[in-house]
Amino acid sequence: MSKENSKNQAAKLATERIKIRRSAASDASSLISKIKMGDRSALGMAITLLESSKPQDKALADELLQSALPYSGNSIRIGITGVPGVGKSTFIETLGVKLIQNGKKLAVLAIDPSSQKSKGSILGDKTRMERLSANESAFIRPSPTSEALGGVARKTREAIILCEAAGYDIILIETVGVGQSEIAVKAMVDCFLLLMLAGAGDELQGIKRGIMEMADILAITKSDGENIKASNHAKSTYSGALHLFPPTDSGWIPEVMTCSAYDETGIDQIWASIEKFVNHLKIKGFFDAQRHEQDVNWFRETIQLNLLSDFYSSKAIKAAIPRFEEDIRSGKITPFLAAKEILTLFSP
Amino acid sequence: MSKENSKNQAAKLATERIKIRRSAASDASSLISKIKMGDRSALGMAITLLESSKPQDKALADELLQSALPYSGNSIRIGITGVPGVGKSTFIETLGVKLIQNGKKLAVLAIDPSSQKSKGSILGDKTRMERLSANESAFIRPSPTSEALGGVARKTREAIILCEAAGYDIILIETVGVGQSEIAVKAMVDCFLLLMLAGAGDELQGIKRGIMEMADILAITKSDGENIKASNHAKSTYSGALHLFPPTDSGWIPEVMTCSAYDETGIDQIWASIEKFVNHLKIKGFFDAQRHEQDVNWFRETIQLNLLSDFYSSKAIKAAIPRFEEDIRSGKITPFLAAKEILTLFSP
Repeated sequence: MSKENSKNQAAKLATERIKIRRSAASDASSLISKIKMGDRSALGMAITLLESSKPQDKALADELLQSALPYSGNSIRIGITGVPGVGKSTFIETLGVKLIQNGKKLAVLAIDPSSQKSKGSILGDKTRMERLSANESAFIRPSPTSEALGGVARKTREAIILCEAAGYDIILIETVGVGQSEIAVKAMVDCFLLLMLAGAGDELQGIKRGIMEMADILAITKSDGENIKASNHAKSTYSGALHLFPPTDSGWIPEVMTCSAYDETGIDQIWASIEKFVNHLKIKGFFDAQRHEQDVNWFRETIQLNLLSDFYSSKAIKAAIPRFEEDIRSGKITPFLAAKEILTLFSP
Repeated sequence: MSKENSKNQAAKLATERIKIRRSAASDASSLISKIKMGDRSALGMAITLLESSKPQDKALADELLQSALPYSGNSIRIGITGVPGVGKSTFIETLGVKLIQNGKKLAVLAIDPSSQKSKGSILGDKTRMERLSANESAFIRPSPTSEALGGVARKTREAIILCEAAGYDIILIETVGVGQSEIAVKAMVDCFLLLMLAGAGDELQGIKRGIMEMADILAITKSDGENIKASNHAKSTYSGALHLFPPTDSGWIPEVMTCSAYDETGIDQIWASIEKFVNHLKIKGFFDAQRHEQDVNWFRETIQLNLLSDFYSSKAIKAAIPRFEEDIRSGKITPFLAAKEILTLFSP
């Protein structure tokens, strides 16, 4: 995102916050009514509330989520990842416009822990999705930038609930395939799509180990012009490699596709593959089971996150950590005894 | 392990415990002196102390570990995994006898969270490693069976310290490639070796997704007789597939080898590959860095484990968990609000 855009966005968020405070009296139930009627700016305000760190905003956000919960769940949640340059925005725009033409409502959210540094490397610049962001049936929201991955992921997971209550059929969660964020995305989606470039060489180094095994569908992008041959070759190479992996729990073997957002080829086939996968999950009884399991995991992980956050934000612990880690590094204490000793310094 | 063996082992452990209590006065420093002199039964006793859940044993074990720590670190730690039937025991015995012939001292430990159910599916039956267990230069210890993976892993990591203080040059950690235990093993070894069978078909299904990407070296076992052709074919297939993965942080590309413990072929080459890998890590400055990072991770993870264990063992929490999980499943509450609410019930 350019500095100018960044400023505009900050100004916009500030205005939203003022609006929210003014309407605080009108409370969660009026906001949720507007959201359910498809009011995009009410949805934007509600997500801003989720992202706020102010206690009064948090309380209102919790109330909002609870009111939205009964109207959530009726979407397909799709994670999309790939290294910078693979063409995620173009892919999402091309796919998104097609879905909307077929009568769908589409929300695009992003998880990008790097955006704090880079000031929004993905989805920050909405102009990259001009056709989509202009469309009434699309809702696009950049990554919350304020915190560590755990917080960002949680807020995105909560935003899904609000988008679903607002009637969005398809929720795309975009992330960059270079870190831990895909694991967070995998934990909130029904289907995980990995975009890759043809050529198994240098481009691959950007993708972290383990991400390929998380993919339900793998798409080779930019399969157009002189690149078609290389893309087809990559497709068969990856298909072969993916067959070497054990199948996923549901018995699905990941499909490898090629596409070009430029030529608009292959996009329909990828959507068909996503639908095939979702049907496979539903037939096998895995669709709901996976979501329930994800929810219970979020519960357990949020407990863990909060316990750890209480611990590590304690002054006594903050002061002691460097000393203990130094003693561990220099072989003066085992990591286990160090853990035992530091816990005695903690009084929540 | 047969029931008979299991009984014998229980009796043996009980005897050891009595011995330990009798010698409690003789304290940690005398036990550590014996361990440093290479007394295998003192080492066995010390590990039994680590595994004990009695508070007085724990205090003594902590003291022991602290005294052993300055003498630890001088070994190569190797993780070995593979599905049941791949021939782990035979492989370890064949490799182990060769290493001992070359003047090395070898300790074999096991992590097997399934052993609680199966009463020790790996290393439990020591007679499977007859030549090795009879040898003075080898120390073999089955998996502690008493608890969840976290505890088992921690105890094995602590046992490594004691084995190193006892002068063992090579520590092999055996595990079964079917669950979370490899992640625990990966976090305590310098080199991770995956044993596989030829034929990319059904056998593979036993290996969990993600394990292949953890391997530094992959060995196709049972490459003898009529199986040689299939093994060589598997070798080239896997080599190709592994090249598709991004390289590890140190720049190492996993090597694929074939071997036969029956014909005693390929074992020397696998050892050479392990040494090559360890040298690679040392030259690149990754060997010590990886160990330090592992230690700091153990510190952080033990803190986490203890915080969570305090939480989940609280009576109020135990009583409330099922209700909250049911409410999450039925969509009555978001996982996040549920986590927030249950934390208010916790007073450590």
